[in-house]
Amino acid sequence: MTHLDIQDPKSIEKRSFEIIGEILGDRRFPPRQEGIVKRVIHTSADFDYADNLVFSETAVESGMEALKSGCTVVTDTNMALSGINVRNLQKLGAEKVCYIADPAIAAAAGENGTTRAVQSMLHASTVEKAQIFAIGNAPTALIALYDLIKAGKISPKLVIGVPVGFVNVVESKEMFMELDTPYIIAKGRKGGSNVAAAIVNALMLEALK
Amino acid sequence: MTHLDIQDPKSIEKRSFEIIGEILGDRRFPPRQEGIVKRVIHTSADFDYADNLVFSETAVESGMEALKSGCTVVTDTNMALSGINVRNLQKLGAEKVCYIADPAIAAAAGENGTTRAVQSMLHASTVEKAQIFAIGNAPTALIALYDLIKAGKISPKLVIGVPVGFVNVVESKEMFMELDTPYIIAKGRKGGSNVAAAIVNALMLEALK
Repeated sequence: MTHLDIQDPKSIEKRSFEIIGEILGDRRFPPRQEGIVKRVIHTSADFDYADNLVFSETAVESGMEALKSGCTVVTDTNMALSGINVRNLQKLGAEKVCYIADPAIAAAAGENGTTRAVQSMLHASTVEKAQIFAIGNAPTALIALYDLIKAGKISPKLVIGVPVGFVNVVESKEMFMELDTPYIIAKGRKGGSNVAAAIVNALMLEALK
Repeated sequence: MTHLDIQDPKSIEKRSFEIIGEILGDRRFPPRQEGIVKRVIHTSADFDYADNLVFSETAVESGMEALKSGCTVVTDTNMALSGINVRNLQKLGAEKVCYIADPAIAAAAGENGTTRAVQSMLHASTVEKAQIFAIGNAPTALIALYDLIKAGKISPKLVIGVPVGFVNVVESKEMFMELDTPYIIAKGRKGGSNVAAAIVNALMLEALK
């Protein structure tokens, strides 16, 4: 086995966060946001997130409380779903779900003339403990949540709005930030399923402290 | 339903690629690499990949041939695995696997004093049609592949080396590029499971043309 200096995952993670801290230098973040910002940079090696990520005032506390009360985290992609740490979810008694690949969702989307992303959010809105939504891909999912909240059908404890892309993405984020719903949003085009999962994972670590 | 101008996923994707092309402006890429570079930018909204991605001379053709012959794509994370388009895999008669969460892999890693990422690559090296490796997370997995290739135990048709991070990542990529194995690598710290999946997806689209 070829050896570089550090091999075990825990040491690598620890050293990685030290390096991220060194690169961030004098940048300071509110204490409970810092771990989230650093974990997103850890998952992307992209320091733009130090500036892009915006937190509504109660977002972190509200998300932590929901996790501690054993909520269900809804994602818009299976990729985000699979990036969320199962062991920490179990410790919190929380769950994760994604309906995008459910054949019933595809069928309903066809009938309703909408997209699977939107339909999966409509379905999630009927799920009792669905209190955190983590959107890493589809701006249409974020817009669907906006509509559901505006219509008084759901009142999530936290919406992680980090869809990525070039069409409707910036607009969907700006629109969502008009709401009073607690949010963590990556302003601009950047985001992704990996970013959505990283934010949930960082929140769980805060909740388990 | 709140409406922005474009809603259906196919139109959004088409317009997104047009915008990416507009932003890239006069930048030109070899024809079969262009779709891969653009798809990675599409999945990350990060134009650094226009410069970061490096292709060994036969990488795209070798990867396409392997996919067309129904190879197995091995990923280092379930997140990369779940990002790979199943329908296109099926059209090609190809498969995808990831061993990282297999309890037998964790047990063997413990016994051998190594990591699950390394152990999952050791296991994959015994899988008959495992010809494409897509590494989006663990530099140790890329180093394990390097060792297996050096030892003559495997000769992959393509290694997608896009681990992300701050420790061993740059080194593992530079080391791998010394080999004659066909590779697509994101130089520097950036990469990720989403990037690994995007490259496989773009390659499948090339192979299906």
